[in-house]
Amino acid sequence: MPTYDDNHGHDHDSTDGVTVLGLGPMGRALAGAFLDAGLRVTVWNRTPGRDRELVGRGATAAASPAEAVAASALTVVCVVNYDASDAVLHQDTVAAALKGRTLVNLTADTPARARDTAEWAAGHGIRYLDGAIMTPATTIGTPEAVFLLSGPEELYGEHRPVLDKLGGTHTHLGTDVGRAAAYDIALLDIFWTAMAGYAHALAVARAEGITARELAPFAQGIGAILPPLFEEFAADVDDDRYSGELNPITSAVSSMAHIAQASESHGIEAAVIRAAEGQARRVIGLGHGTDGFMRVTELLGRSRR
Amino acid sequence: MPTYDDNHGHDHDSTDGVTVLGLGPMGRALAGAFLDAGLRVTVWNRTPGRDRELVGRGATAAASPAEAVAASALTVVCVVNYDASDAVLHQDTVAAALKGRTLVNLTADTPARARDTAEWAAGHGIRYLDGAIMTPATTIGTPEAVFLLSGPEELYGEHRPVLDKLGGTHTHLGTDVGRAAAYDIALLDIFWTAMAGYAHALAVARAEGITARELAPFAQGIGAILPPLFEEFAADVDDDRYSGELNPITSAVSSMAHIAQASESHGIEAAVIRAAEGQARRVIGLGHGTDGFMRVTELLGRSRR
Repeated sequence: MPTYDDNHGHDHDSTDGVTVLGLGPMGRALAGAFLDAGLRVTVWNRTPGRDRELVGRGATAAASPAEAVAASALTVVCVVNYDASDAVLHQDTVAAALKGRTLVNLTADTPARARDTAEWAAGHGIRYLDGAIMTPATTIGTPEAVFLLSGPEELYGEHRPVLDKLGGTHTHLGTDVGRAAAYDIALLDIFWTAMAGYAHALAVARAEGITARELAPFAQGIGAILPPLFEEFAADVDDDRYSGELNPITSAVSSMAHIAQASESHGIEAAVIRAAEGQARRVIGLGHGTDGFMRVTELLGRSRR
Repeated sequence: MPTYDDNHGHDHDSTDGVTVLGLGPMGRALAGAFLDAGLRVTVWNRTPGRDRELVGRGATAAASPAEAVAASALTVVCVVNYDASDAVLHQDTVAAALKGRTLVNLTADTPARARDTAEWAAGHGIRYLDGAIMTPATTIGTPEAVFLLSGPEELYGEHRPVLDKLGGTHTHLGTDVGRAAAYDIALLDIFWTAMAGYAHALAVARAEGITARELAPFAQGIGAILPPLFEEFAADVDDDRYSGELNPITSAVSSMAHIAQASESHGIEAAVIRAAEGQARRVIGLGHGTDGFMRVTELLGRSRR
């Protein structure tokens, strides 16, 4: 099996090039973009065989994660979650090989897991950045890709030229290493909740004899009004202003109840919208019925005080 | 109090002009747009006083709903729900005055309530269209307004010139009178579920020290990717294709679990995303873990078969 040594004919020239651990759809896209940018790329994946196409394009397949991380000054890991990245990284040989090098973890998980990993890295002399990829694998290497990073600013600055090879926009969110994961969680919350609403809406529409293709143009219209509302409501929430003058939460509750009734009348469960309705009804129960729906944000945060 | 007779000096010239029942923010916007278009407008609201500004702009305030509907060939009703519109319409004097005239109900409720009202209207010799307004009151009279109508096609054609005065786009969805309400329910399902996701995301972000204004630009980015995904997934759902090659539902479940864990670790309830996660886990449990998230639509519709 070729190694970085065989391929390049010199020992431990690890100051250039990049290692990618994890070759799922996203890991393969990352390694592919690095290859397209002309970088020396070393790859490793737990399940063998995922590296074939990348090796055909010039990547070096490492025999072990320790060998993989030793091949480059910068290692990017992108696997399913931090249980999976811990399983790869928390081996003595890997930690030893990473010492003094930089690890960028683009795996998605909670902010707490990102902070734990930063602590582990610090304990092993590993330079650490945490990040999140906000767009699908197909966007990697294109202007549509969106990357969020957090951790030491100078470390980010040092590796930014290589990370930039992935295309798209990169934002350094600050030195709190959990920041990228926190943004990721909040943004995925919006995304997956909206998708859950769409899947449910299509089920109710189908029960009413409306095809998904018939609903889609109007659904796109609903999607298009969300971004300006997100901006408007963000200011309201930051300023603890929840005006319901044009659309009180009582009216939102009325809509949600209609949705749930129409769904359940067809035997379709309405658990997601019922949960949202319950939150809105609690806001009303707390005496804020003339406020707008976004007062739910304040309700959800209450238990923390 | 002036009536339509006093104002116009002729008796029952009800072939022109329009009556608006219900003067909440939306009813007032509708009446205002009709006034701006130069139509003779008669208004009535259960709670007095809401008509003041409109009367100042030339509207006629009716003393009763029966008097109001008698003033015009076309009556538009827009109140909080069909319990409220029934309370106004299901009076002998009102039904008698509406006989042979057209009623357009723009109140939001379930398809079943729309169909019930159409049946009631047919039983009283009242010509009936049902409709839904998909955009906020502030859009009425502007190109941004979106109206959905259903019911007899020729009746829609007859009144379309007056309805067009409300601005925006008008779509006749077919002769099934419940169709507009069905679209309305499905589209509001998408809207309110997405808003619930946004409110929750802002609460989690705040707990992580991220302000709503900081998150908003990225949230807008998430909002912007929804419309093309809605279109793509609509075709998949209609064709019973749920490919998870790039993003299997197991990966969606992993994201949802991270969101819920991060939320709950701050003491913030995660009922909405937990409900969505449960649906996705059931899809996996039924053996479809390699499919995409939209397979949830098929799961939700199963109980109907």
